This record gives sequence, structure tokens and C-alpha cells, in this order.
Amino acid sequence: MKNSYINEKVVLSKYPSGIAKKENFSVIKEDINNISKNDLLIKTKFIGLDAALRLLIRDSDEFLFRVKENDILHGNIVGEVVESNNSDFQIGDYVVGSLGIQTYAISDGNGIEKVDVNFAPPEYWLGGMGIPGLTAYYALLDICKPTVDKNVLITGAAGAVGSIAGQIAKICGSKVFGTTSSQEKCNWLINELGYDYAFNYNDNDWFLKLKDASEGKLDIIFDNSGGEVMNQSLKIIGMNGIVLLCGSTSQYYEDEMKGPSNYIWLGTMRARLQGFVIFDYENRYNEARLNLAKWLKEDKIKMPNYIIQSSIDSFPSAFEDLFSGKNFGKMILKLND
Amino acid sequence: MKNSYINEKVVLSKYPSGIAKKENFSVIKEDINNISKNDLLIKTKFIGLDAALRLLIRDSDEFLFRVKENDILHGNIVGEVVESNNSDFQIGDYVVGSLGIQTYAISDGNGIEKVDVNFAPPEYWLGGMGIPGLTAYYALLDICKPTVDKNVLITGAAGAVGSIAGQIAKICGSKVFGTTSSQEKCNWLINELGYDYAFNYNDNDWFLKLKDASEGKLDIIFDNSGGEVMNQSLKIIGMNGIVLLCGSTSQYYEDEMKGPSNYIWLGTMRARLQGFVIFDYENRYNEARLNLAKWLKEDKIKMPNYIIQSSIDSFPSAFEDLFSGKNFGKMILKLND
Repeated sequence: MKNSYINEKVVLSKYPSGIAKKENFSVIKEDINNISKNDLLIKTKFIGLDAALRLLIRDSDEFLFRVKENDILHGNIVGEVVESNNSDFQIGDYVVGSLGIQTYAISDGNGIEKVDVNFAPPEYWLGGMGIPGLTAYYALLDICKPTVDKNVLITGAAGAVGSIAGQIAKICGSKVFGTTSSQEKCNWLINELGYDYAFNYNDNDWFLKLKDASEGKLDIIFDNSGGEVMNQSLKIIGMNGIVLLCGSTSQYYEDEMKGPSNYIWLGTMRARLQGFVIFDYENRYNEARLNLAKWLKEDKIKMPNYIIQSSIDSFPSAFEDLFSGKNFGKMILKLND
Repeated sequence: MKNSYINEKVVLSKYPSGIAKKENFSVIKEDINNISKNDLLIKTKFIGLDAALRLLIRDSDEFLFRVKENDILHGNIVGEVVESNNSDFQIGDYVVGSLGIQTYAISDGNGIEKVDVNFAPPEYWLGGMGIPGLTAYYALLDICKPTVDKNVLITGAAGAVGSIAGQIAKICGSKVFGTTSSQEKCNWLINELGYDYAFNYNDNDWFLKLKDASEGKLDIIFDNSGGEVMNQSLKIIGMNGIVLLCGSTSQYYEDEMKGPSNYIWLGTMRARLQGFVIFDYENRYNEARLNLAKWLKEDKIKMPNYIIQSSIDSFPSAFEDLFSGKNFGKMILKLND
């Protein structure tokens, strides 16, 4: 290895209660002087902020991929290869993968992908071209199957997955409704992303407005939020409707998670709550990306990124901002050079 | 009409809070001196006790088929035709249908069925040959599809639907687990109905025992109970598992229903909560009954009825007993002659 490097990594210093804050995390420095045969060293350029991380840093053995105190935080990054002992990767290649929240990552190449900038710029591989975009694509097209006669509700509509999912449902010709946390984001969903209706769930009458606009029939609920927003929506689930369980952002930081008490409506309506994991589609990522890149080029879809440029020290505050809903689209921390 | 009759009907006198009690109901008498052209008069012989009735007598407009104060209680009965102005029904015919909790019912023949005693005795048409048996049959065979390699949990296993469902899952070769409310009923499930394992949910360690016996994998949860029993079970739902929403007995009488907080496990496991309504299978009832009657004749299935013989005044206390889990199989009130 030609150079030595100083890696800064974000670790969990204290299990959070409620929304995770600065004091729950620390940044630790370590020297990297060597990498093994077949390894490559990646300099992080972009870090994806993902609400599901909050689920991993709970003080509970119940969740997979648990992060314990003093462990590095899990997370997807896009970075540039700066050293390589692996013939599959050249210095200067951009890669994406779950490499943790740190400024330099070592990988043997397993489980990471090369970024194809002909498809989209590097940071897009954390959003629309990455796991969020792929999730929106397959969860909708393979499971929910939106069509012109269907009403589709996207909860967490302005988030990383929601912002893409709503646009794909529009491409399919459905009537698309979204819920989000402010009037400004409602306007953005309608004016920028082409949603038919958007509702601020902080308004008291959001559900009545949704019920009215949808004529009391939601064929598809693409749920990123869980909690009361999803629960209320179940009251107007359509016959044979589907509630796609993509995420439960509102519950990840709760000491006691809440289940949807209106689930009994599913019974009468022959509807279902359906789990989904994008990793089942790993061998079909390229197929989705070809379509997503085509839509992007044809201006049929936008891939909104909400980019904060700063040092890695800003990760905790950016993560906190994610839970207060500051982001319009995928929240990304772009590291200073 | 040759005779006149005195009908006694059970009405809701006061919306209950919690488990419905005697004081929530009254018995009202009325004379029947005439029936219209095409009508028939049915003398009730057997009344089916159904927990879902509790959902209809809530003081809420949210539920379908609501029963308000002073309305007659909904319910399925088996009775004998005693007067007929309808050429499709003869005096002496036995019929089954949703005719309300009363000693005499008038019907124009729509929505009721003739009881075929070649298949099974009249009272069986409220249990194994009736809606509960048909529900168990189609929900399992058409939706859940139990096979020899699958673990099947039946919650409310000793109830009207559960007692049949467990046996059908055994016919399909699955390993069958049941939850119920007493050790006596556990023994009955295993010794009489052929369940592989049964657990008393009033024991503190019921879930650990279930987890152990099932090796932490339930492919099918056939849920009749809802509440904490279903919620805990979600933690060991298998990959691509199905939770069939048949009933939520534990929630019907709660002022505030609870949703399953462990629903987020469905996400990771690609599993689903699936609604089901037997009325979608109305044109296939006979197909199921042919098989059920065959199994009954071949002693491959039992259709347990828990019969209380009394007057209609006993309906309220029988309904209360249903919620304290006194019944082994379908609870039926057999009216004194």
C-alpha cells in the first residue's frame, strides 16, 4: 500500500431512548497502514442516512444485524477505490455497499457493487438507483401491481423510498396519494413529483381529507411509516387491498412499538399486510436499473437527493434531522474532501 | 296459517362494556298470527353461539351489520319449518341460516339452506358442516395450503373453527400446534382431535414452550383469537409465512382494541397477515360439505359440539360462557321443546 490513512468511524456510544441524538454516538479515529491480499480500500464520498438503522441500535437481541455499544454503525456508502489488491477493482472506481459509517472502508469486494455512472451520478446509487429505488420498483411492480383503476397511498411519501414509489405508481397510471410531515413537503410532492394528492399528517383533518379524496378506497397502501398514519388508513383499505410493509419509521425509536389496532378491517376486506425484503431480488437489480435509468433520462422520474455537505462528525445531527423529516427525498451526507 | 305462535326474541337492551352480561340483553315476546305469500315459519331448534356477535353490539358505526339497542341479535340457527307458503320448503324440513336469536323466524327462503341430514345431523350445520367448518376448510385449503413440511398454529384451537381447522391441517400431514385457555382443553385437543401440541396461554411459559416445540418456525398461523397470543406468535413466523385472520375473539369486547406490535416481523420474514371471508366461497359450499361429510363418515374428523339444552332465556349466560372459554368445539343452545 502506497499511503497510510486515518479512518474516522461513527460508533454507538450509548443506546438511545427515543430519537437518537448526538450524545448516543462518537467518532473514533484509527490508522490504516495495510490491507490484505484481495482487499481494496475505499474512501467514502457519500453516506446514506437510513431510518432503519434506529432499529438496529435498540438494546434488544430481537432484531437482526444488531449494533451494540462501541460497534460501528451500519450504513450504505458510495466511495472511491484508493488502494486495490483485487483485480476486479481499479483505483478510481466508484463502489456502493453496506460498508458502515466511516471515512475509509476495507472490503474484499464481496457484497459491494461498482457504480455505473452511465446510469446515474455516484450519489444516486444511495437513492433512486440504490436500495431505496430498487425497493420502490420491485415492491410496487412485483407485489402491489398498481394499475390505472387503483388508488395508491404512499406513507412517508417524501422519503427515500416513498419519493420514488409515488412516481412509479404514477407511471403505472394510478391515482397517487401521499402523507408527509409538512405543507411544504405536500406542495413538493404534488408540484415536483406529480402526486395527485398529499396530506400533512400533523393536520387534524388529514385522514378525513384523504378519505374524501380517495372516495374511501385505497387499493394499495405502500407503508413506510407505520404508526397512526398507517393504522387510520386501514379503515379505508379496499377490497382485496394490499398494505406493503416497507418500513415503520414512526416506530423505530419507540420504547414500546404499537401495532395497527385497525388490522381487523383486513379481515372483512380480504386484504393483507405483506412483508417485503429487497434482497430477494438481488439477481434482478440490473433489470430494474435499466428501466429506472431510462425513465431518468426521459425525465419520467426524478431521483431527489437531500444532500448535506459536511464532515463525518455531522452524521449524528443528520440522523436526528431524518427523524424530524427535514429531508426531501434521500438524505445523503456528502463528505468534505 | 293453521296456528298462531308466540315468538321470543333476544334483543340488545344496553350496549355492553367488556364481556357482555345478562343485563345487556332482554327477551321480548310477540305474537305471530300470519305470514306473507312465499314466506315460511321456522321453529328454532338450535342456536349457534358466535363470538363475532360481540363486535356487532358495540356502540360504534364502524362495524358492518351493526345491532343497535332494542334490535334483535344476529345469529345462525337451525330450525324446522312449521308453516310454509313457499313451494321450495315443506313442513318438517330442517333449515339453517342467519335468522336471529329467536324461537320462531319468518323467512322468504332467501339466504337460508336446507339441512341435508344424510350429511350430518341438524345441529352439525351450525358447526362442522356450517359456517365454522366451511371457514376452516377453505381458509386452510384455499389460502394457507398446509403440507407435510409445515408447522401450523391454530389459536383459539378448541373453538368452533379452530377445532375443525386443526384436524384438517392434520389430514394434510402438517405438524399442528394449538393454543387454548386451560390444561383440560389442551388434553382434549391432543387426545380427541389429534393435535401434536397444545398450550394453555394462561401459563406464563406457553410461548417458550411453543417456540421450543415448533423449533421457532410457524409457517401458518390460523388466528381465531388476536391479542397477545397472536402477537407473540408473530415473533416466530416462518419465511413467507401466512397469518390467516379468521377472528379476533380476545379483542371483540375490548373498548380499545390492540394491534399486533410485532407486525414488523412480517417485513423481515416476507410474511403476511391475510384477511378472509367465507361468503366468497358460497358457490363452493357443497364441494366442501361432500368432503367434510366423507371425512366424518370415515372417522377422519370429529365435529365437536358443546350443547347446552335450555330455554332461550339462557342465551345471555351461554354467550358469557363462550368468552370464558367453557366450550369444547361449537357452542350450541338446544332449545327445550
